Amino acid sequence: MNPHTATPRILDGIAIAAGIKAEVAHQVRQLGPQGITPGLAVILVGDVPASQIYVRSKVKTCGELGIYSEMITPPETITTEEMLDLIAKLNAREDIDGILIQLPLPAHVDTRRLLEAVAPEKDVDGFHPINAGRLLAEGYSGATTSRSGKLALAPCTPAGIMEILRRSDIPIAGKNAVVIGRSDIVGKPAASMLLNASATVTVCHSRTHNLARFTREADILVAAIGRSGFVTPDMIKPGATLIDVGINRITDQSQVDEFFPGDEARAALFAKRGSTVVGDIHPAAFALSGAYTPVPGGVGALTIAMLMQNTVTAARSRRSTLDRA
Amino acid sequence: MNPHTATPRILDGIAIAAGIKAEVAHQVRQLGPQGITPGLAVILVGDVPASQIYVRSKVKTCGELGIYSEMITPPETITTEEMLDLIAKLNAREDIDGILIQLPLPAHVDTRRLLEAVAPEKDVDGFHPINAGRLLAEGYSGATTSRSGKLALAPCTPAGIMEILRRSDIPIAGKNAVVIGRSDIVGKPAASMLLNASATVTVCHSRTHNLARFTREADILVAAIGRSGFVTPDMIKPGATLIDVGINRITDQSQVDEFFPGDEARAALFAKRGSTVVGDIHPAAFALSGAYTPVPGGVGALTIAMLMQNTVTAARSRRSTLDRA
Repeated sequence: MNPHTATPRILDGIAIAAGIKAEVAHQVRQLGPQGITPGLAVILVGDVPASQIYVRSKVKTCGELGIYSEMITPPETITTEEMLDLIAKLNAREDIDGILIQLPLPAHVDTRRLLEAVAPEKDVDGFHPINAGRLLAEGYSGATTSRSGKLALAPCTPAGIMEILRRSDIPIAGKNAVVIGRSDIVGKPAASMLLNASATVTVCHSRTHNLARFTREADILVAAIGRSGFVTPDMIKPGATLIDVGINRITDQSQVDEFFPGDEARAALFAKRGSTVVGDIHPAAFALSGAYTPVPGGVGALTIAMLMQNTVTAARSRRSTLDRA
Repeated sequence: MNPHTATPRILDGIAIAAGIKAEVAHQVRQLGPQGITPGLAVILVGDVPASQIYVRSKVKTCGELGIYSEMITPPETITTEEMLDLIAKLNAREDIDGILIQLPLPAHVDTRRLLEAVAPEKDVDGFHPINAGRLLAEGYSGATTSRSGKLALAPCTPAGIMEILRRSDIPIAGKNAVVIGRSDIVGKPAASMLLNASATVTVCHSRTHNLARFTREADILVAAIGRSGFVTPDMIKPGATLIDVGINRITDQSQVDEFFPGDEARAALFAKRGSTVVGDIHPAAFALSGAYTPVPGGVGALTIAMLMQNTVTAARSRRSTLDRA
């Protein structure tokens, strides 16, 4: 079968996320008889509307899965010292397994210092450098402890990418993986995980010359740069697996026509809402792929599920219910 | 000028190391009037002859540069708990700025746990996961503090590679760097540093298919796999910078003939000693390069110098004499 002409497989993030959430709910139910209810604290500073939407969605999912959640909403004027105080109290609380600081924070607080103040074993966003270091050393193993017997909590978005690949039986070992983007939140941890899963990994970024010569060799291409339809059909290897992390809102009819020509469902949605989203990969490139994550409904759909999994993993690890190897 | 026919530049690790050591000695002298003598504790367990040679060499260099050093030599039978106790005492000592645990340790002790027990700010080998995580996030900046105001102590061998490249004015940003090997000690941290220096970075390893197609595209090739002459002339891009981390001892005349045909100096050395060393890159490949690190006298020559630099950097950072950005 020529992958060039085969119909690409759609990697359905919503369905995969639903499966993970069902597993998490099951893990939560198993913890009940031991008197353990996993608990997540979410700190939401100020009044950023997008952040409020994200946080509400996280809190709602906690409720659905049986995870206790607590929303802490300090005013915009909170200082770094006050935040450190708040984090220290959450670090010390037995009933809180995960601490999430919703970003971005106001410019006057020291975000990096705050992220490092979260106890690594409660760092369900996987942003603490010790978790980044463990992930680089040991990779992502899902809901288990790491080689050192300590937990490497992985950032949710790249962990979601690994779950999509694994649950879709897409081989990683020995494959050529190319990651576009080198952020601490997506590109770098995705590279760490793919490398430890034995892919040959190339990280490309804004300073890369002749990007297409790298992307055209990719069996697995991860695009995480935040530029609408940046990866065009000429940049991919036919039959490749395309993982699109971008979620870019477009509001111009001309862009809808460019990215989704002849797509009536998308046109209707745009007519109704006045906007739609497109990933970092041009939809025309998906047509040449072997498999791809759609936008929306791909990688983005996994993020909250992975946060839930991290919270329960943190609870099981910290409260010593996980089997140690 | 065609790099194919130009004479390659030899990147003289011994000379670069001498420059770094002179700088370190100068930093030590500057600390004197403040009553600060940087101190390094080296823990050497048991009687591994190679380890004894390395440790003696480190202690000797400390003496030459004005760094206080202390060698602690527990018996082979020491337990993990006793080692943890020892490390805790060194962590607490004001006069000790760097703690080095000479590897390998006996199989019965938990090496990973011990490496994580070293206070990150005294981790002059750069092996603690928090330092690996900071290095991945922030890269290598030499003897300065990191973006977070905290110190990212980098492992000595890959830090030495960065010093060779920088001090030889070899451009990194936008270049294609390929690292062969994914160890926690060399390959991964080298990739972290090159990526943060804005190279496009590919990490290859034993599972990589068709390695040559990657290495042939490398402007900077780092070989760290421990296999004699593994990278052959057909695998490199003419004019590339070749960084050879391998130090492989050969004892067969046939290997000497294979790697160093017509090299009378090498033949004489081999005749005298019965062995010589060859890197991971075949010497015939060096001839096609733009620049290369010889073996011996290349990367290996930097390791102790970087340990000395890390010790003084740790002293300056911990004792608050470094300017904070």
